[in-house]
Amino acid sequence: MVEKALYFEDIAIGEQFTNGGYLITKEHAIAFARDFDPQYFHTDEEAAKHSVFGKLAASGLYTAAVSMRLKIGSPLSKVSGGLIGLGLESVKWPQPVYPEDTLRIVITITSKRLSKSSPTKGVVTYRVDTYNQHDALVMEMDAAVLVPCLNSHKGESQ
Amino acid sequence: MVEKALYFEDIAIGEQFTNGGYLITKEHAIAFARDFDPQYFHTDEEAAKHSVFGKLAASGLYTAAVSMRLKIGSPLSKVSGGLIGLGLESVKWPQPVYPEDTLRIVITITSKRLSKSSPTKGVVTYRVDTYNQHDALVMEMDAAVLVPCLNSHKGESQ
Repeated sequence: MVEKALYFEDIAIGEQFTNGGYLITKEHAIAFARDFDPQYFHTDEEAAKHSVFGKLAASGLYTAAVSMRLKIGSPLSKVSGGLIGLGLESVKWPQPVYPEDTLRIVITITSKRLSKSSPTKGVVTYRVDTYNQHDALVMEMDAAVLVPCLNSHKGESQ
Repeated sequence: MVEKALYFEDIAIGEQFTNGGYLITKEHAIAFARDFDPQYFHTDEEAAKHSVFGKLAASGLYTAAVSMRLKIGSPLSKVSGGLIGLGLESVKWPQPVYPEDTLRIVITITSKRLSKSSPTKGVVTYRVDTYNQHDALVMEMDAAVLVPCLNSHKGESQ
């Protein structure tokens, strides 16, 4: 575990950060879907049997939310000032997620460059691959985050 | 409001679907962040004053979740069999979302083509623009969904 804050200079292309052990419960998946994605294959166990999934499936956005929770629990979240996302690219769900699945993520740093508009910060891009307990890929995405440089450190970070 | 199911043939490029009136409450934004994005600028009103946001801000993923909820309440959700997302592209958050903001979405159909692998279905892409009560763009994303063709209708849709 990384204890001190991470700066732009600390992060290497190809470096990986992992976290896992998130059990998907039916209750939580349904509660999320009722709030944000109330479609019958995400909220109604009986009706879901007649859907394209054949059984209750988690919302793709729930899988994204759980993956973010795992990311915040990973050492990458020690980035100085916190992980402030710039955007996402190429979010895909190659396999559904079902209740009782256990999810883990692998974050891989894919690029880094200094910011043009803010010379004391860098833009770091990374890929997040989310797997279930059978090591099947259930979500993949590319993301970008702004990371302060060491020379920007004025004691304001957490 | 569209009451009958929507098929591939019913959807036109350039067509728009809207929904709105979603009030962001501090309690709900914090509860979401505690579950999925527990960073101090999303969960701690006092500490957030010293963050880059200057006050408590909603998680970008919460904005995405609320936008999905608005999408499911829009006429586009009448797609036969439900909205099964194929993926997202270019998710961006040009402005933060704060408690007491009220969000609305504008969905614009950007392309449609028949599926190569499944000839009774089409791939429809659309853009979702999410605005706050000041008409400032707070999120933009491109998404793709699989939509059944009329000739696939065998009475199995909702």
